[in-house]
Amino acid sequence: MRIHVVNPNATRSMTEKIGAAARAAASAGTTVVAADVPSAPVSIEGYYDGALAVPGLLAAIAAAEADGADAHVIACFDDTGLDAARSLADAPVIGIGEAACHMASLIGGRFSVVTTLSRSVPILEQNLVRSGLDGRCGRVRAAEVPVLALEDPRSDARARVAAAIAAAIAEDGAEAIVLGCAGMADLATTYAQEFGVPVVEGVSAAVRLAEALAGLGLRTSKAGGWARPRPKPGGFEGTAAAV
Amino acid sequence: MRIHVVNPNATRSMTEKIGAAARAAASAGTTVVAADVPSAPVSIEGYYDGALAVPGLLAAIAAAEADGADAHVIACFDDTGLDAARSLADAPVIGIGEAACHMASLIGGRFSVVTTLSRSVPILEQNLVRSGLDGRCGRVRAAEVPVLALEDPRSDARARVAAAIAAAIAEDGAEAIVLGCAGMADLATTYAQEFGVPVVEGVSAAVRLAEALAGLGLRTSKAGGWARPRPKPGGFEGTAAAV
Amino acid sequence: MRIHVVNPNATRSMTEKIGAAARAAASAGTTVVAADVPSAPVSIEGYYDGALAVPGLLAAIAAAEADGADAHVIACFDDTGLDAARSLADAPVIGIGEAACHMASLIGGRFSVVTTLSRSVPILEQNLVRSGLDGRCGRVRAAEVPVLALEDPRSDARARVAAAIAAAIAEDGAEAIVLGCAGMADLATTYAQEFGVPVVEGVSAAVRLAEALAGLGLRTSKAGGWARPRPKPGGFEGTAAAV
Amino acid sequence: MRIHVVNPNATRSMTEKIGAAARAAASAGTTVVAADVPSAPVSIEGYYDGALAVPGLLAAIAAAEADGADAHVIACFDDTGLDAARSLADAPVIGIGEAACHMASLIGGRFSVVTTLSRSVPILEQNLVRSGLDGRCGRVRAAEVPVLALEDPRSDARARVAAAIAAAIAEDGAEAIVLGCAGMADLATTYAQEFGVPVVEGVSAAVRLAEALAGLGLRTSKAGGWARPRPKPGGFEGTAAAV
Amino acid sequence: MRIHVVNPNATRSMTEKIGAAARAAASAGTTVVAADVPSAPVSIEGYYDGALAVPGLLAAIAAAEADGADAHVIACFDDTGLDAARSLADAPVIGIGEAACHMASLIGGRFSVVTTLSRSVPILEQNLVRSGLDGRCGRVRAAEVPVLALEDPRSDARARVAAAIAAAIAEDGAEAIVLGCAGMADLATTYAQEFGVPVVEGVSAAVRLAEALAGLGLRTSKAGGWARPRPKPGGFEGTAAAV
Amino acid sequence: MRIHVVNPNATRSMTEKIGAAARAAASAGTTVVAADVPSAPVSIEGYYDGALAVPGLLAAIAAAEADGADAHVIACFDDTGLDAARSLADAPVIGIGEAACHMASLIGGRFSVVTTLSRSVPILEQNLVRSGLDGRCGRVRAAEVPVLALEDPRSDARARVAAAIAAAIAEDGAEAIVLGCAGMADLATTYAQEFGVPVVEGVSAAVRLAEALAGLGLRTSKAGGWARPRPKPGGFEGTAAAV
Repeated sequence: MRIHVVNPNATRSMTEKIGAAARAAASAGTTVVAADVPSAPVSIEGYYDGALAVPGLLAAIAAAEADGADAHVIACFDDTGLDAARSLADAPVIGIGEAACHMASLIGGRFSVVTTLSRSVPILEQNLVRSGLDGRCGRVRAAEVPVLALEDPRSDARARVAAAIAAAIAEDGAEAIVLGCAGMADLATTYAQEFGVPVVEGVSAAVRLAEALAGLGLRTSKAGGWARPRPKPGGFEGTAAAV
Repeated sequence: MRIHVVNPNATRSMTEKIGAAARAAASAGTTVVAADVPSAPVSIEGYYDGALAVPGLLAAIAAAEADGADAHVIACFDDTGLDAARSLADAPVIGIGEAACHMASLIGGRFSVVTTLSRSVPILEQNLVRSGLDGRCGRVRAAEVPVLALEDPRSDARARVAAAIAAAIAEDGAEAIVLGCAGMADLATTYAQEFGVPVVEGVSAAVRLAEALAGLGLRTSKAGGWARPRPKPGGFEGTAAAV
Repeated sequence: MRIHVVNPNATRSMTEKIGAAARAAASAGTTVVAADVPSAPVSIEGYYDGALAVPGLLAAIAAAEADGADAHVIACFDDTGLDAARSLADAPVIGIGEAACHMASLIGGRFSVVTTLSRSVPILEQNLVRSGLDGRCGRVRAAEVPVLALEDPRSDARARVAAAIAAAIAEDGAEAIVLGCAGMADLATTYAQEFGVPVVEGVSAAVRLAEALAGLGLRTSKAGGWARPRPKPGGFEGTAAAV
Repeated sequence: MRIHVVNPNATRSMTEKIGAAARAAASAGTTVVAADVPSAPVSIEGYYDGALAVPGLLAAIAAAEADGADAHVIACFDDTGLDAARSLADAPVIGIGEAACHMASLIGGRFSVVTTLSRSVPILEQNLVRSGLDGRCGRVRAAEVPVLALEDPRSDARARVAAAIAAAIAEDGAEAIVLGCAGMADLATTYAQEFGVPVVEGVSAAVRLAEALAGLGLRTSKAGGWARPRPKPGGFEGTAAAV
Repeated sequence: MRIHVVNPNATRSMTEKIGAAARAAASAGTTVVAADVPSAPVSIEGYYDGALAVPGLLAAIAAAEADGADAHVIACFDDTGLDAARSLADAPVIGIGEAACHMASLIGGRFSVVTTLSRSVPILEQNLVRSGLDGRCGRVRAAEVPVLALEDPRSDARARVAAAIAAAIAEDGAEAIVLGCAGMADLATTYAQEFGVPVVEGVSAAVRLAEALAGLGLRTSKAGGWARPRPKPGGFEGTAAAV
Repeated sequence: MRIHVVNPNATRSMTEKIGAAARAAASAGTTVVAADVPSAPVSIEGYYDGALAVPGLLAAIAAAEADGADAHVIACFDDTGLDAARSLADAPVIGIGEAACHMASLIGGRFSVVTTLSRSVPILEQNLVRSGLDGRCGRVRAAEVPVLALEDPRSDARARVAAAIAAAIAEDGAEAIVLGCAGMADLATTYAQEFGVPVVEGVSAAVRLAEALAGLGLRTSKAGGWARPRPKPGGFEGTAAAV
């Protein structure tokens, strides 16, 4: 099985961390192909960055689809461009944000999400409403850590995330924690041991969900909003692949 | 007052129709500047088309903001790129979809939306949840008319829309109708007379709401998800204006 | 355009302040006719006061409707008697509470309301559910200030309202503030400057929305709950005008 | 125990039917005092009629409260003036609409309401949201029967109500039926036998609930929205009793 | 009238307290038959205990139904086995949890529940969603008191419950308090006097509601999810009575 | 990896079909141990049957947990006893109903469920509310087929299920179908080909989800409602294993 994991920003070091997390989570027999989007911002911090990343992301989805990917993972916790990607693909497409929240809801009655910046909180809240899991989420909390600070071992990023986890358990009644950024993919085990509750990380959750869907032979429905893009006069439809 | 009305697709004839509707609705003293997005698809029919239109739309917003627009109107009923545009702008930004639904909720206890294609229905349903007006909406109905068929006087588009309106009144208990496509901007009066209920069209509704917000001196809050984009290492932030 | 602004209590000084706010907000060419309801309580503080105010309010609506008002504004933040007034009128009727919340939702992702007394909180919460905007509201907060204390420069009313605004920003994540009493109509600019977020006041918001609706030619739908009152045996229907 | 049952309209024959239903439902030892509101419309058909009935209704509540009523029942299915009445009374106040729906939810997983006119449907839908029972209600259906037609044995009112009940069972999955008008108080048993599902009528349900609350010593909380009306400068508070 | 009150645990002293509370609340002419479930755990603290109690509880319901009970009360605040019991019975079945919350919603605009252990909180939250009363509930609070500590006068159970009530009033805006355990049946009056808001206890509330339903002749609908159990090949249906 | 799949009824032929479906879905390296509950009813058709099945089911969970199962699957679409089983187990526990709905929500914007009997519909509706996926579900439809008729090749069960699927696509806008009974485990491929939309079956979905959770090292949180059962005076806690 081939799983295409696309980091929708342009930071190669994040792609490498994401790829490593994906490969560590994948079953034997699964090939992970990790890619990033060179035309995208170096990090996705809010609606604007996400919107600029999508055309390149869609081109990556189209290319991997043509290469025979069995499933796609969008490795930004905002689930950037997820609906558009599903329109483009026949294979299943999973966002790491929704993946982590679905998984968390199966092992915790209530979970809280700890993300980077407060500007991302409404995006994640809207995604939770969209998936239906908002009622299972205690609160989306921001650690107020820029995405790339997670890449910098000298920053206080890890301590800030830990403080937000502690608050989620104490104040939200969180029974499980969801780490709300792909850049936190290497921290789940540490926090799980520190806090004694399950900690779910999106990249690994999405890879496993993608394997599950592809293994069941399930493909994205084309019967509704995720129907294939309509051809346009002037051939616009092919544009994404050319970005 | 200067209101920037941007048609986020590349079809000039739609821009002209939208501009005319906007000018007809505007108060004395308001200047309407209508534009389109040449880099966008010729019509926005579903998630994929919408995603591709956004970077060019954001560049248009940035340019108009720099030119001193008092408010922006996004003239696609999907409210394409609305959150990202609000991040970029200090002036108010109004989508014609939300504008029509807010207005309809003030003169009808329950309204239904009649849009073009069924693939757009989930987009509009999600937007209604986002604005909070889903509980006021009886149903989002698709007339199964491609967007550009509305531009073609020989098509049966108008009859199909009329049939959907009739069904909305009979089956949904709709007390008002919202026309769910910028390409229907010239049809509201005709349908209102034919069906005897208020018919709300988005371009005119949005222009009036934009005037209202700008007239009150209200500007987009920068305190949450619509905070200005963060500068990126390598200067990515300026990219949209260069698309 | 003629807009009828009715203060549904009997306090003339509030009517004057409301009328001034309405005129300051109105466009050139709009005539504001401000009135109050002499048969009503001197202030509306809770369900009981509101219920007693309604028959006189309806008589005022009926009279202004007969005089050719293009729209009506009910200038109590409780939106007192709004549904009944809409039944009676063909012209649009806007409550200042709903008007402010609709406007705030367009320039802030989340807003909080600051009202006078805690007994009014459930009324405003119910109105938010009714309009659908409850999901956009962080919290309805009471400053614990009687309505008429706002008229008294020696009271600590302004400081109490400011404290509630500060709490809304810090604790609710409010990106915009809605002032929840017609008696606060003159305070919006001051607080906006003090707190750096948009502050929406209902009288001006409602006047602008009323202009927008009337300018669009939209009238209250008679197809559902706002159908005209049924004539009664014995001619009861005319009673309101005689109160 | 003394239960004050107030028909908030001016039709004496309805009051007599309501009083008979109340007495038939009451326990041994309960005295039912039935009254109507001479200053109100002859029937309550929509928001406007309801609003005009409230001041006289409140005066009736105040008088009965002073006379030592142990509980009050508002015998209009719209629960006309319920919140204002609760502000005025220390004894429990029950609306027949909410009473019937609470009871129906205890013996049927899903119930539908059959009321008189479609203009009343949004009122009842809002009341269901208010009580929280909307999720338990399949649909509020109008039989399109004017209230006073129920008093006229020559009308087809009973057949129309029966047709709506049949539709509720077949289409809504209703396991129980709520009769949505005080004027239907004498029909519950007939319909229950005809349709083989429980049929709940509001007057009897409310009398029994009122007995239950009063028997438990429960009184209306004064800690929130139902706090006693504030005294007004000029003594307005006493006005209701004088209407 | 005969009301069957079943304590679904095996602790006889709780049954006696429950029986006393039920008899104190019952009307003249009502016979209360209190029973417990010897095969059940000694207390119900969480999902697991509840699940083990149900077969014996259902046998008790079946036996009392055969003995001609006019209504059944399930005297655990978790409303243990309520849907299954309703399938088995024609007479009304009331859980003390739902009973208390329905009653509280009629005399308080917002109520909070104070229960024993935090592990029971999600059960009660789910029940509130099921009844529809979750929107009326400020918060379900745990006093962190084991059920049987309420039976022990030397424990600090009463003080802990009082502290939770105080917090509910101060922080949740609770206008009424619901005591969330059958073992608190004797404490309602004390707390009501101490805190000055209505305090609702489930056993008495359920007995009164059961009287009300039975007095109205209402029986559990067999038209939906509460249809009688289907006979099984091999006669399994009778098993419950044999537990 | 060892996955314990428990059919909570007593019908061995269903267990064999379920076991075959589970093994067909499992990855290489996964051992499926399928079991049934001899003390349970022969089929679970409604609340009552489900309640009687749970103690034996819990004993099976406890035994498999002691035997070192890496995950448990409850193979009844009602997710019978799921919360209690999660309290008992440290390994993840997945119900086939929730599993199928989570999976369907990832490949279809809206799905409908087709189950056996209408008495099961409210159970499934409540489970959807519990998981949060109710907003993603068009409708839960009953084919009116008894569970064991699915085992009988002469019955018209398959045609009835097909008719319900057709209705779901036409009337509910379902983009994917969920088969709502473990006894339909062998029918998914056939229906997917016949109807051209994804068809999700619960046993295979749950096995794959269980593998995913166990593979990620996620275990059931003990921090909230799924805390381990409290020891009881008299040692009741061990009872389930002895049933």
